[in-house]
Amino acid sequence: MSQLDAKQWFTEVSDRDGSAFSLRITDHLETRQSQWQTTAMYDTTDWGKLMVIDGCTMVSSRDNFLYHEMMSHPALYTHSDPKVVVIIGGGDCGTLREVLKHPGVEQAVQIDIDENVTRLSEIYFPELCESNDDPRAQLKFIDGIQWMKDRDSASVDIIIVDSTDPVGPAEGLFNCAFYQECLRALRPGGILVQQSESPLLHIKLIQEMRSEMAKAGFDAFQTLPFPQPLYPSGWWSCTLARKGDSFGDFRRDAADAQSFETLYYNSGIHQGAMALPNFMKKALG
Amino acid sequence: MSQLDAKQWFTEVSDRDGSAFSLRITDHLETRQSQWQTTAMYDTTDWGKLMVIDGCTMVSSRDNFLYHEMMSHPALYTHSDPKVVVIIGGGDCGTLREVLKHPGVEQAVQIDIDENVTRLSEIYFPELCESNDDPRAQLKFIDGIQWMKDRDSASVDIIIVDSTDPVGPAEGLFNCAFYQECLRALRPGGILVQQSESPLLHIKLIQEMRSEMAKAGFDAFQTLPFPQPLYPSGWWSCTLARKGDSFGDFRRDAADAQSFETLYYNSGIHQGAMALPNFMKKALG
Repeated sequence: MSQLDAKQWFTEVSDRDGSAFSLRITDHLETRQSQWQTTAMYDTTDWGKLMVIDGCTMVSSRDNFLYHEMMSHPALYTHSDPKVVVIIGGGDCGTLREVLKHPGVEQAVQIDIDENVTRLSEIYFPELCESNDDPRAQLKFIDGIQWMKDRDSASVDIIIVDSTDPVGPAEGLFNCAFYQECLRALRPGGILVQQSESPLLHIKLIQEMRSEMAKAGFDAFQTLPFPQPLYPSGWWSCTLARKGDSFGDFRRDAADAQSFETLYYNSGIHQGAMALPNFMKKALG
Repeated sequence: MSQLDAKQWFTEVSDRDGSAFSLRITDHLETRQSQWQTTAMYDTTDWGKLMVIDGCTMVSSRDNFLYHEMMSHPALYTHSDPKVVVIIGGGDCGTLREVLKHPGVEQAVQIDIDENVTRLSEIYFPELCESNDDPRAQLKFIDGIQWMKDRDSASVDIIIVDSTDPVGPAEGLFNCAFYQECLRALRPGGILVQQSESPLLHIKLIQEMRSEMAKAGFDAFQTLPFPQPLYPSGWWSCTLARKGDSFGDFRRDAADAQSFETLYYNSGIHQGAMALPNFMKKALG
């Protein structure tokens, strides 16, 4: 039983899960405080740069590709022709970068309440911000819940909710009222995709999320698991909900003919994520 | 940055990876020391019982099904008719239990050098030991490397190397000399499957393992990733090597008609694991 020196390790304790995860750090680079949250940056020995929000490990240089690719490409290759994509949260800009890899996307709006996250990402994760100047990108630093209320009906193809855990500023992104506004803003066939925590540890949260989405009027659901070392259990998921359509196959030919590079995603990975483990099938019906 | 109280948390520091993983414990149940290693048992708040060998978290009640199912069923459903299965290591008996779920298996021999592991598992993981009295099971507590040398040629269908990391007592299980003995002991079409660490953190180890297996004379290789929260990065893998045959499809119809229960494994999961992430395809050629 080792005692970790707090000067050499950053530790996130996940109290609800009875687990903790630590990365070995070499430097505390910077901390910025907003009215919503505290964002800290560290350098690590083996994981590149590390972003921490309110004590939770959010992004590392080494493993963020898993999360960002799975939050974007499955939804974009499931929709028949996504032109307008909205990202709620996602201030590190990694999801925005993946979305803009799709040449068919005409507009991608990122709405993160806390500008600090983006400014720190620009400094420490420049690779995640390489599409911020794309003429199709809009970066807004306002309340995503209010923005969604104000958005025209049937004007969006895909909404990606790339938020922190459902406590604090992100709490309002996990309930029926917010999902109703998303549904209204989506065009027919549109897709809402949201990070939905750990399949092993938080299956009840996934059940509740899908139940709230159903209450809001979404017609079909799909939960896709993927590895994500930085988050509790190292196994994470996103949940897709669809307006007025089911989830059948995705645009496999387009994924196979993909003109851009991905480190994790490909059509086989997408297909594989659609095959749920037996315990998840049972829990999600 | 939280400081973990060593009385309330068990922490495994993975020095080579710059990461650490902790589980919250309620009790230290027992520690047994053999000439090879130290095995300790803990009770946890959220993960059931925990087995630790030489400071490394090995098995928890909550997540071991992922590892044990993926170390066994893919290999058994890939082989056309596995009758004789040998497990090197695997003293917790969880892999043995999965193997014996297959009605076609006539003999399953588990060879772990350290009897303590099995005796502790019988006490604290009785569910993993429920097939130990199966008449098809043989439990031996001897050196697996020597046993393999003594085994008749072409007498085994599947060899599962379910060992600790490639340091200490398990070091000799990760090299060409051992793989040559495995190849000799296997019948044509036989499969060797070995835990092969983290796809994200240890891709070089996977490359070296496959290279040693090729040097030993194996003809085809397949690496299957799967989630495993207790091990560094929460993402693990097994690597299969085949004698005198390639890896094509597996016995999907048999997997779909499976007469026994699994929590993680099904034919879709198997197929999904065969679809490697792009970075692994590139690294493994």
